[in-house]
Amino acid sequence: MAGSSFGTQFRITTFGESHGRALGAVVDGCPAGLAMNEELIQPYMDRRRPGQSAFTTSRKEGDQIKILSGVFEGKTTGTPIALLLENTDQHSGDYDALKNVFRPGHADFCFEEKYGIRDHRGGGRSSGRETAARVAGGAVACLMLKELGISLTAYTSSIGGIQAPFTDREEIFRNPLYMPDKDAAKAAMELIRERSAEADSVGGTISCFADGLPVGLGEPVFDKLDAELAKAMLSIGAVKGFEIGDGFLAAGEGSRGSKNNDGFLVRGGQIIKASNHSGGVLGGISDGDRLFFRVAVKPTPSIAREQKTVTKEGLETTLSIHGRHDPVVVPRAVVVVECMTALVLADLLLQNTCARMENLKKIYGE
Amino acid sequence: MAGSSFGTQFRITTFGESHGRALGAVVDGCPAGLAMNEELIQPYMDRRRPGQSAFTTSRKEGDQIKILSGVFEGKTTGTPIALLLENTDQHSGDYDALKNVFRPGHADFCFEEKYGIRDHRGGGRSSGRETAARVAGGAVACLMLKELGISLTAYTSSIGGIQAPFTDREEIFRNPLYMPDKDAAKAAMELIRERSAEADSVGGTISCFADGLPVGLGEPVFDKLDAELAKAMLSIGAVKGFEIGDGFLAAGEGSRGSKNNDGFLVRGGQIIKASNHSGGVLGGISDGDRLFFRVAVKPTPSIAREQKTVTKEGLETTLSIHGRHDPVVVPRAVVVVECMTALVLADLLLQNTCARMENLKKIYGE
Amino acid sequence: MAGSSFGTQFRITTFGESHGRALGAVVDGCPAGLAMNEELIQPYMDRRRPGQSAFTTSRKEGDQIKILSGVFEGKTTGTPIALLLENTDQHSGDYDALKNVFRPGHADFCFEEKYGIRDHRGGGRSSGRETAARVAGGAVACLMLKELGISLTAYTSSIGGIQAPFTDREEIFRNPLYMPDKDAAKAAMELIRERSAEADSVGGTISCFADGLPVGLGEPVFDKLDAELAKAMLSIGAVKGFEIGDGFLAAGEGSRGSKNNDGFLVRGGQIIKASNHSGGVLGGISDGDRLFFRVAVKPTPSIAREQKTVTKEGLETTLSIHGRHDPVVVPRAVVVVECMTALVLADLLLQNTCARMENLKKIYGE
Amino acid sequence: MAGSSFGTQFRITTFGESHGRALGAVVDGCPAGLAMNEELIQPYMDRRRPGQSAFTTSRKEGDQIKILSGVFEGKTTGTPIALLLENTDQHSGDYDALKNVFRPGHADFCFEEKYGIRDHRGGGRSSGRETAARVAGGAVACLMLKELGISLTAYTSSIGGIQAPFTDREEIFRNPLYMPDKDAAKAAMELIRERSAEADSVGGTISCFADGLPVGLGEPVFDKLDAELAKAMLSIGAVKGFEIGDGFLAAGEGSRGSKNNDGFLVRGGQIIKASNHSGGVLGGISDGDRLFFRVAVKPTPSIAREQKTVTKEGLETTLSIHGRHDPVVVPRAVVVVECMTALVLADLLLQNTCARMENLKKIYGE
Repeated sequence: MAGSSFGTQFRITTFGESHGRALGAVVDGCPAGLAMNEELIQPYMDRRRPGQSAFTTSRKEGDQIKILSGVFEGKTTGTPIALLLENTDQHSGDYDALKNVFRPGHADFCFEEKYGIRDHRGGGRSSGRETAARVAGGAVACLMLKELGISLTAYTSSIGGIQAPFTDREEIFRNPLYMPDKDAAKAAMELIRERSAEADSVGGTISCFADGLPVGLGEPVFDKLDAELAKAMLSIGAVKGFEIGDGFLAAGEGSRGSKNNDGFLVRGGQIIKASNHSGGVLGGISDGDRLFFRVAVKPTPSIAREQKTVTKEGLETTLSIHGRHDPVVVPRAVVVVECMTALVLADLLLQNTCARMENLKKIYGE
Repeated sequence: MAGSSFGTQFRITTFGESHGRALGAVVDGCPAGLAMNEELIQPYMDRRRPGQSAFTTSRKEGDQIKILSGVFEGKTTGTPIALLLENTDQHSGDYDALKNVFRPGHADFCFEEKYGIRDHRGGGRSSGRETAARVAGGAVACLMLKELGISLTAYTSSIGGIQAPFTDREEIFRNPLYMPDKDAAKAAMELIRERSAEADSVGGTISCFADGLPVGLGEPVFDKLDAELAKAMLSIGAVKGFEIGDGFLAAGEGSRGSKNNDGFLVRGGQIIKASNHSGGVLGGISDGDRLFFRVAVKPTPSIAREQKTVTKEGLETTLSIHGRHDPVVVPRAVVVVECMTALVLADLLLQNTCARMENLKKIYGE
Repeated sequence: MAGSSFGTQFRITTFGESHGRALGAVVDGCPAGLAMNEELIQPYMDRRRPGQSAFTTSRKEGDQIKILSGVFEGKTTGTPIALLLENTDQHSGDYDALKNVFRPGHADFCFEEKYGIRDHRGGGRSSGRETAARVAGGAVACLMLKELGISLTAYTSSIGGIQAPFTDREEIFRNPLYMPDKDAAKAAMELIRERSAEADSVGGTISCFADGLPVGLGEPVFDKLDAELAKAMLSIGAVKGFEIGDGFLAAGEGSRGSKNNDGFLVRGGQIIKASNHSGGVLGGISDGDRLFFRVAVKPTPSIAREQKTVTKEGLETTLSIHGRHDPVVVPRAVVVVECMTALVLADLLLQNTCARMENLKKIYGE
Repeated sequence: MAGSSFGTQFRITTFGESHGRALGAVVDGCPAGLAMNEELIQPYMDRRRPGQSAFTTSRKEGDQIKILSGVFEGKTTGTPIALLLENTDQHSGDYDALKNVFRPGHADFCFEEKYGIRDHRGGGRSSGRETAARVAGGAVACLMLKELGISLTAYTSSIGGIQAPFTDREEIFRNPLYMPDKDAAKAAMELIRERSAEADSVGGTISCFADGLPVGLGEPVFDKLDAELAKAMLSIGAVKGFEIGDGFLAAGEGSRGSKNNDGFLVRGGQIIKASNHSGGVLGGISDGDRLFFRVAVKPTPSIAREQKTVTKEGLETTLSIHGRHDPVVVPRAVVVVECMTALVLADLLLQNTCARMENLKKIYGE
């Protein structure tokens, strides 16, 4: 129960179903004095919004962000920031056919069994639309990190096995797949079109990195930086895997300590690592290097192809899901990955301020 | 700060450094009336203990478990169960050479930067020895799950790329690598010997499954079953990756919704899934099928081979780590994976009891 | 930071300033299947609403409750219930004079020092209006308790030293002071008029009791039932004291263990207490008897009488607060006390379901 | 469940029953670099220890503190500090007679009903001995506060109605009752002797103040400084009431806003309050003035006088409790109040560091 909050010091609480009145997020613990307004948050919402290309659903979700509290004269006040997204373009009728049937690959069956009741319209609370609230709250975290000189970059690193090398950071925002390589994006679009034509869908991977992190983020033992990131990522509906740095590669063929360890060097008076197999985390604590990780996103479960399933009453049946669905959710999940990363980092930044007595003395004097 | 607790309702808090007086765990929130004594916990400790074969360190860690509280006349009382492990066979002198130098692949540098002070003896709090306290506390969770008909199986699924098929559950406890296949174990042992002879180390993967879970464990949105598992796994020192069900495979070449979705069937009046690509989790909630996931474990960072590093004072130097270290940590981490899984499941079981009003009425009457 | 949530399993998160767009509450962890709609919550809002009598401010606050999520077809679904209260009748201009001056008895100075920025309009987040969100969320808890056979009664037990004996439960809702005694109410109204005429204000006490509680609510050691209640009560702006059962009387003249202890008896096969000096709590756990406590509410700090204060710039000045303020906040705080009590009880009810293994077996089978 | 932890950032988790092997506390979140050793903590334990005068029990509790972890070369390392207190002088046999009977004024009945099992020896987890672990952990918090220039003073302010004016701070440590007035102490000792001779007991009040607090501690809305203190205090077994500043007086006869409000002045360039009716807290946030509160402690429930009660089997019986019990618990609870106060303040100090963006910039640079 009560699983709708994330973070301890910088904490987001979300609410809302896909076809209810509204979704939203309450951000509690954001420090006072950060520049904030709706125009600063909206671009994050727009990156997640459907209907932007042939590869995303044509639904027009009500993603105009409204700040209800916590901001005064353009600055955060230290009090909770409530963010509201009204639902507007709902075709709830689309879902009547799904009222009594459990969609394969969806949470319908589990919600019904767990709660004994379920808002069947569009997946309710387990809809991908739920991530809109995360993006709203995560945007606040992104803005805080930016102010502290930390930058985040998330992108589609592969779709259906087509890998996108990190050719050009600018390219990410030029193609509808958010891939950093033009040719890969072209090939991937072709693949998506094929799958779509077959009434099927496809998955992919998203990569994310952060630059400018101080050494020291992450709390041993259980609240390690990579542990919190892993939780954040797997909490996103369609994500099925997470790896930090070399990840599964570090465990596979050719795995060697001598290769996986990153030696230390001194450059310009600074201790740095000679390589970054660790992905910027040692012992669960940021090591000052680029934070780097990758997630696996499953293919969209809503497909037009006929599937076997059962009704609420326990009768076998078949199901073809029509309506407005993305043949691939990866591109729209890119900003969700970025925002969840920001939430993790913002929280650990706040937690880490008290790691030393000398930090307390900087704030409170001696 | 305060990152040494895990779980909300069934919560473990651990303490201790590898070369301090003792390590331990406090388990808070374990229901009353569960059979408990030291003999029930000790076998879990023994599975993690080093010195059991040529493939694990010859250190003899003080892993005799002592229950200090929370148990009365052989049963848990509902009060916190404190578990103590005294450190006995410490060769702290082994670590004097490491006092002023940062070991590559270890947390030394990060601890120094974060806290400004570091117990350098054996890694202190970031030592693999820290997991002993998790096993102690996790054993309590394992025993609770067993009482509720839930069984866990963790095993080494690969080492250095050598895959172990799940041939035989019994075999897991017959070979020192905890592999479920005799031939794979033999080949892996050969590989470990080679790496060891080269003053190097190797990583691998651990798989884990759970049977007998009720439908409904896991809290949407952020505290999903797979999200909590991912955090639990990545919180284990050497773990670098996590995947649930088909994981990264679901996102790769050949990724298709029609393939990844598990249809529903009715068998014997029960709704079941026709396949289990989901790994037993839909929308972050257990779906009644076998829970299944896999983690990546990096190669042991402590190797005898010479490595480049720097001193605390910022001078470049080289380092060869001698002493008693496992050439592979995977086998000893198997029980840690199992115990962390048990902690996640125990906590979510407790949280889920209040999902419905009718459950409350079962407990409190109307 | 992040102090806007209350409870662990049944958790409320509130947001909003008195002169922002809206206030609201997100209730997370409410079990599914509880009858819920706006009409069920509105009566609680109405009891807190100002402008209902000569003794409360004539402001018309926007206390029409809107449920944004978590309810489907008249029942809770187990997902977060977002409750919205739009601000409508704000005279923000009333507060321009207070922009640069710290009101005595208010949090203005502390907010300014803590955050470096402050929404000065009507007290912002520290306004009494903040309690509207608590009442909205607490009403959900009240409805859950009612469904489980637990009833709450809160009332004004004294104003300015005029004690109201518990003559008649019905009388509470008949006089504007929520006193259970007609004559006391009359005398208290006279006193309030006097204080008001003197441009001054007055405080009082609120008492609350709960019937129908099962034995066992409250978690030893730190999360005792009375400890959680004490926190809940002192978290209400104007509350300055709390006592459970005999409270300070138990510690004063004539204090004796023989008098304070409640003997046990058997009546109708049930173990009951012969008296209830404990206020229904032993060792922090509900003992099955009536839960009973009392709180002290300070006089309204906003008074028209001239007071000494300083400006934001540190210059001494004087201040007379005009505008729409209650000469006594006690009556409107009665429902706040009731709702905060409900939140504590609902949370502890949920936490207590897992106290025993046999309870788990009732839910999950063996 | 899981009610044995207190605090969020600076968090203590305690364990142990009065007649088990040991009690202890794990302090997690204490900043690194604080001077710490057993000699610094022991004096706090000694103030709580029984057997120090005719007015406290003659039991010799095993209150030699042992630090098991988290301290290296005389300084805290930022990792959890485990503190152990072995039980040595237990006369468990004393309690055999109480095995099947519920002591009035004790938690026996509630534990039995809640958990279905109970360690009857000496009250088990609900024993006053449980507070030893709080003192151990709280001592760490006290030492941290001292380092930051914050001082705490707790004392017995009344016993059985005999008030002790705050005549002399030094006197507190000169008389066995920890009263700040010699004559009051003399009179109170006489009263205790009388009650003791009558096989009865007596309660009293404890007052506590803190000097040197920065403005800004306490988180609106729910985690107010006074709310956290109220919880901390009521979580101590025998405490039945709490008031901050003027407390119940502010609500009683003569209650007036004009009297209760503390005007602001400027002295030496600093904004200060002209009076301190608020007890150093405005809107739940420390206002820079002396923090001041008072608690009510009930009379010792264990008395030799015959009392009516029932057996576990539900038969009425009578009971006279013999053994080693304090006729008054107030003096020994003084240090417990001080330590719980320190835990609240330490936690809020840590939480408050992130109230403003400019604080973050002080730690992390821009």
